[in-house]
Amino acid sequence: MKKINVGLIGFGTIGTGVVKLLKKNRNEIMRKTGINVQLKKIADLDVTSDRGIHLEKGILTRNVNQIIKDPEIDLVVELIGGVTKARELIIKALYNGKHVVTANKALLSLHSRELFKIADKNNRMIGFEASVCGGIPIIKVIRESLVANKIKKIMGIVNGTTNFILSQMEEKDLDFNKALQLAQKKGFAEANPDLDISGEDAAHKLQILASYAFSTDIPLKKIYFEGIEKIDIQDIRYIQELGYKIKLLAIVKMDKHNRIECRVHPTIIPKDYLLASVKDEYNAVFIEGDASGGQIFYGKGAGSLPTASAVVGDIIDIAKSCEESRGASYSEIFDLHSKIVIKKFADFSCRYYLRFHTKDQPGVLAQIGKILGNHRISLTSVIQKETGQKVVPIVMLTHLAKEDDIQRAIRSIRKLKIVKNPVKIIRIENSD
Amino acid sequence: MKKINVGLIGFGTIGTGVVKLLKKNRNEIMRKTGINVQLKKIADLDVTSDRGIHLEKGILTRNVNQIIKDPEIDLVVELIGGVTKARELIIKALYNGKHVVTANKALLSLHSRELFKIADKNNRMIGFEASVCGGIPIIKVIRESLVANKIKKIMGIVNGTTNFILSQMEEKDLDFNKALQLAQKKGFAEANPDLDISGEDAAHKLQILASYAFSTDIPLKKIYFEGIEKIDIQDIRYIQELGYKIKLLAIVKMDKHNRIECRVHPTIIPKDYLLASVKDEYNAVFIEGDASGGQIFYGKGAGSLPTASAVVGDIIDIAKSCEESRGASYSEIFDLHSKIVIKKFADFSCRYYLRFHTKDQPGVLAQIGKILGNHRISLTSVIQKETGQKVVPIVMLTHLAKEDDIQRAIRSIRKLKIVKNPVKIIRIENSD
Repeated sequence: MKKINVGLIGFGTIGTGVVKLLKKNRNEIMRKTGINVQLKKIADLDVTSDRGIHLEKGILTRNVNQIIKDPEIDLVVELIGGVTKARELIIKALYNGKHVVTANKALLSLHSRELFKIADKNNRMIGFEASVCGGIPIIKVIRESLVANKIKKIMGIVNGTTNFILSQMEEKDLDFNKALQLAQKKGFAEANPDLDISGEDAAHKLQILASYAFSTDIPLKKIYFEGIEKIDIQDIRYIQELGYKIKLLAIVKMDKHNRIECRVHPTIIPKDYLLASVKDEYNAVFIEGDASGGQIFYGKGAGSLPTASAVVGDIIDIAKSCEESRGASYSEIFDLHSKIVIKKFADFSCRYYLRFHTKDQPGVLAQIGKILGNHRISLTSVIQKETGQKVVPIVMLTHLAKEDDIQRAIRSIRKLKIVKNPVKIIRIENSD
Repeated sequence: MKKINVGLIGFGTIGTGVVKLLKKNRNEIMRKTGINVQLKKIADLDVTSDRGIHLEKGILTRNVNQIIKDPEIDLVVELIGGVTKARELIIKALYNGKHVVTANKALLSLHSRELFKIADKNNRMIGFEASVCGGIPIIKVIRESLVANKIKKIMGIVNGTTNFILSQMEEKDLDFNKALQLAQKKGFAEANPDLDISGEDAAHKLQILASYAFSTDIPLKKIYFEGIEKIDIQDIRYIQELGYKIKLLAIVKMDKHNRIECRVHPTIIPKDYLLASVKDEYNAVFIEGDASGGQIFYGKGAGSLPTASAVVGDIIDIAKSCEESRGASYSEIFDLHSKIVIKKFADFSCRYYLRFHTKDQPGVLAQIGKILGNHRISLTSVIQKETGQKVVPIVMLTHLAKEDDIQRAIRSIRKLKIVKNPVKIIRIENSD
């Protein structure tokens, strides 16, 4: 029986889940894997709250050094979140010869290259399955199950908060603010929901997924992201009428010339796509390999026990790995395709949904259509309905167009006197 | 760079995919994993057909002993299918110190316990990801990603042929035979489709999944299976009208008393279940762990390159594994829960769809209803429509009922003079 001594830093929601899971299924894990996971120490600033777990005396401490500097601890689980302090702790742990398991996506999306280099230098591993989509084993799938594939595309619903809000807007015909309040009430959105709503959290996860899948280090600031805060219920209704649904998708794809594009934005997809059926707080990732074809991995992307399931999976993986056969180290992997070109925002192409509010007078369509045509943008559908109002909405879906052309065309259209604010642009994915 | 010498036995569809994939992505695999997969020999009875691959001289042979007895070969990939010959070859390979990777579900569903014991005795591994759902990494997910979980339930669309046929019946309003012919024309069904259509192939896969997930060896003959050959277009229409879809599901679940039930049959599920959206030849597996919650894994369950993706993933896993930390061996795993009770067919409970054809006369519903009531079966819905015919169909959905009660009730109902053949029973899953 192999033993691994674990120190846990951060005894919050996920930390509590990890401790509960290790207690509950300890024998099962030992029998299945031959590995005895021994939780030796837990560090947290709060050592008094009752988390509903009986801990032996001396396990809980306020002093992280009792973990970082304990020579008997083999592996540190970092669950305090945040960037600065967590980075310091992980670096110290690695230099002290400890493996690290973390769920910290914000940290990894900024500093993974640095951290993996330090891990390599110290011949330690960093497990980070829990950093993307909680309990869904997407990192391991990319690293191991799809190892024989060149990844061509990833398209994921990687943020439960925004997926819950969009689902509620669609199903219950709620406006954005009401749906957000409901998400907060149900615990799916934070009191300050900006990181989720803005798409930034999804961009963090995309940075990790895309860097790993394409063996390169994608700077976070090169990932375009746009949130769901401007999606209004009118758009949702038009999109439904057209046979589509709207999801906040994190997208990365590589073209024939090894150029990749990475972007997070509200995305319109056909309603018969499997991703379109992923509701509420659930996550799902579509991943296409050159041999495997398209696969989808679906489940709970957050929560105490689902995330703990991924953390414990990583602990076991590290305990089972042997030094001589760990393969290319993480920092080497990032350099494999260091010559990959990351496309600029202006060079993206996709189909677009455009919504204008115009004065109800003759020639409106002709004027808008002319500007779009001048920018090489052609249309697949137009909806304009009788409203009896002075200002009427027009919705258009385009063929494939360049982001740059769309932005220029919209700037010109906004200048037309007949066009009122707001003009809405939502991207469509349905090429595959 | 670690090297692994591979011998391939069986150069058919999947074998050709494996060779193509190893050639195409060899450098990528080496860089990512540090492992050089060297294809040393290929054995097949047909050494003349052009498979569109350039092979160096001397690689292809008709003599399997050139693989089994070659001391330089570390791992044998068995892709000849069938039970007798494949079993012999695998046993010989293991005794000769070779690891084995196989896609042979029929063999494993009958002989995995024996084969894994021999593998353990010789300190070799058997990789079998490709045996269930082609490229979808469901075995690895159970073994590693969900290792911290107790598995509670698995529910899978694990046979592409039957899923294609049911999808076509639903979408194009085809009868069973027309849909089968279409599947054969498109290459999704064999000339003799019995193994797929009857549910037997799905039972093979369920045997492997369930044994592995519940750490026990489930005798194949204890798995109830029923095919889709009796589903007719009328049932499909009623089911759609009621807001459901029909899928051939392989189901295993464990109750509170550690009793498991294993069954394969056409299953009615609510149309907003994600599994209900899995169309055509695709596969998907729902798996519920006590920590992870429900997860779904979706993709191509067959085909040359998707299956090859799983085979090569297994080769890399075995090459990376180190002897001292392989955990509980396979044969030990089968004994972990050797006291698990496998429920008898008669003890299953679920909800049921019943369709009767009855004479259009007063008291029909009362007579059927009375018999059902006498067997503790209560109804949630009844559909009977005006048809103007002398014989009219009645469709009923029940609350949760015991299989045994249903079978007894139906036997009594069949005896009523007002009831004509056939009486249809289709099981419903929507408790979770």
